[in-house]
Amino acid sequence: MAAPLPNTQQAMRRRNLSLVLHAVAAHGPLSRAAVAARIGLTRAAVSTLVDELARDGLLVELGPSRPGTVGRPGSALQLNERGPAGLGAEIGVDHLAVCAMDLGRRVRVRAQVESANRDGAPGPVLGRLAELVRRVAAEAEGEGLRPVGLAVAVPGLVARESCVVVRAPNLGWEGVDVGPALREALPGLPLTVDNEANLGALAELWLGGHDPAPRDFVHVSAEIGIGAAVVIDGRLLRGTHGFAGELGHVPVRPEGPECVCGGRGCLEQYAGEEAVLRAGGIPAEQAADGHRAPGSRIALLARRAADGDQKVRRALRGAGAALGIALAGTVNLLDPQKVVLGGALTPLAPWLLPALERELAQRLTDPARPGQDVVTVSRLGSDGPVLGAAGSVVQGVLDDPAALREDGA
Amino acid sequence: MAAPLPNTQQAMRRRNLSLVLHAVAAHGPLSRAAVAARIGLTRAAVSTLVDELARDGLLVELGPSRPGTVGRPGSALQLNERGPAGLGAEIGVDHLAVCAMDLGRRVRVRAQVESANRDGAPGPVLGRLAELVRRVAAEAEGEGLRPVGLAVAVPGLVARESCVVVRAPNLGWEGVDVGPALREALPGLPLTVDNEANLGALAELWLGGHDPAPRDFVHVSAEIGIGAAVVIDGRLLRGTHGFAGELGHVPVRPEGPECVCGGRGCLEQYAGEEAVLRAGGIPAEQAADGHRAPGSRIALLARRAADGDQKVRRALRGAGAALGIALAGTVNLLDPQKVVLGGALTPLAPWLLPALERELAQRLTDPARPGQDVVTVSRLGSDGPVLGAAGSVVQGVLDDPAALREDGA
Repeated sequence: MAAPLPNTQQAMRRRNLSLVLHAVAAHGPLSRAAVAARIGLTRAAVSTLVDELARDGLLVELGPSRPGTVGRPGSALQLNERGPAGLGAEIGVDHLAVCAMDLGRRVRVRAQVESANRDGAPGPVLGRLAELVRRVAAEAEGEGLRPVGLAVAVPGLVARESCVVVRAPNLGWEGVDVGPALREALPGLPLTVDNEANLGALAELWLGGHDPAPRDFVHVSAEIGIGAAVVIDGRLLRGTHGFAGELGHVPVRPEGPECVCGGRGCLEQYAGEEAVLRAGGIPAEQAADGHRAPGSRIALLARRAADGDQKVRRALRGAGAALGIALAGTVNLLDPQKVVLGGALTPLAPWLLPALERELAQRLTDPARPGQDVVTVSRLGSDGPVLGAAGSVVQGVLDDPAALREDGA
Repeated sequence: MAAPLPNTQQAMRRRNLSLVLHAVAAHGPLSRAAVAARIGLTRAAVSTLVDELARDGLLVELGPSRPGTVGRPGSALQLNERGPAGLGAEIGVDHLAVCAMDLGRRVRVRAQVESANRDGAPGPVLGRLAELVRRVAAEAEGEGLRPVGLAVAVPGLVARESCVVVRAPNLGWEGVDVGPALREALPGLPLTVDNEANLGALAELWLGGHDPAPRDFVHVSAEIGIGAAVVIDGRLLRGTHGFAGELGHVPVRPEGPECVCGGRGCLEQYAGEEAVLRAGGIPAEQAADGHRAPGSRIALLARRAADGDQKVRRALRGAGAALGIALAGTVNLLDPQKVVLGGALTPLAPWLLPALERELAQRLTDPARPGQDVVTVSRLGSDGPVLGAAGSVVQGVLDDPAALREDGA
């Protein structure tokens, strides 16, 4: 995102370029006149802006629009499918994923590899990721796209406005700067790093298939831990230090079991993967046997629950109730439109939801809101973070297309 | 606040008028050149804007600024002390308060009356309030001020973008529309109604004496219940239905005592006034005897604690610990810069803080943040809501001064 601009003519033009692009992205194909009507500028002003965006390869003209529209036939505008593209990457515990997304937020290239990232040194992991990104970028260029930025999703805390992973317990990383290795491998490509729950939430906003997309919601996801992202008015709440969203460490039972964070009775102690495996009577060795990757441990739980394993079902009910208690506090505090269960929680939703919704129904203060209306399950599943990463690069282009030029002019 | 404006020349001028006014409000007296330097516009552009603001009575010129500054001496600009003014009002459980505030956010007129608002019909309460507002408005006009809006603080839930008090348990109000009575008494004066915790939080932002003021914080206050306001990037988080901030109904012990909200073990059951009186061994009758007003019950608790009453001190420690548990979850979720204890909690802070900070220190996940740094005690005490109400009207003028003209042009 560009820094806030002063209210000069040039700044106004930059904002208006973005307004035109957003209008076409949301409602295109659109004629110049339709764009003008939507954003409240004159047709002449819009035409100048459109010419500029077309020259920069962001918009294309589809030829004369269909007859029957009033006035002289205008050619319909659409985002360029062969223009700038966003690259998104995800460092999972057991895999690396990369995708390239065009301005219309369609995934055009995608690659994923198994990769034992847990407890290995960060260097080789970042080397493999850089290689994968280079490959996807080259394929995207082969399709006529022009990668303009890379965003990387990591399962951990990232210091605000930096590429430093402060702590990613599931990777065994602490204070790892992801920047140098990726910048060296991909010189000149702007890079951002963000928490996977944050990027998963943004994916929900742009690609979640909601109509209309909620502007204020809490996105809850899990990969071993429990993470959440708070979206307010369509923007991520990052927090003063970039650490917002630690739903897993909301106290559920203040005198409960000790937590790795130093507290007691945190949500993670009841609804985290390890706690659920334990309560479900699945010994650590058995869970590890062929189910080392968290995704497959979640799949194991889902399969057993589907098969009618009462102990696993009871464990998931307990996790759902704990989620409901923590989320009741969250909803009472923030009054969001929706709570979205995403990521690894998606396949477990059928067994988590009843207890979760029962707690919400009992504990929400909002007189207008029955608990059942609040929670929804993401359709993106575990793809959220990598899609949100690429989508955030695209969003940067839509928000300030002029920044793509070297001089910003 | 005005609706978002399209990016036209006229909209840009309106935004620039606001930028000039905010610059003078934050840093004045300032010369035209200093304003231009601060907001990144040319001196000529600033001069035109200043002339317009002066013509509308928002800015005044103080005469030539002191010598020694570079360039030709410019006359220093300052907010007009005899210009538009904001009226703020508060409906407390046992009092009504009204004040008039000038553009520089100085309180110029203030009135407060005892008023048994609890469990009475809303009509007479609103009648008394209208009378008090009329008196303060007349006095403000006597000082050359021009009241341009009224904001009313109420101890309850207010439906978003309305004047309807959905529920104010401490007043015994449900579904009371505050609008008609006040509009009839004060025709033509724009009116807003808001929760007292929200307005108290805004007062903290503008008048709390922080340097610099935190942009992201949680403001916790109490008048019988426990309310909180979440401020993000200098703006109140209102929530989808306007009900954000119900910290009092964050679960602390999920199997704890039943709460009026229908839940169990909410914070209010441990740190609400009634719970603390009970735990402190103060029978309801004794608390009621000469201490019907919540303010005086709080004073009773503070006095006993100061006198060394061990049972009261223990009760306040318990309340502090419960606050710490609920706030640990809040801070882990939102990562705010500060938690401000305000309102009726201020006089009790010395006995609440140690246990509260102990819980935070143990439960916060942010590795960079020791618990002791998070909490601060408001200097505004119980004046916050009425100051925040008047201040919000002033903020509206600073944000869009052109809206004061009837045609907005």
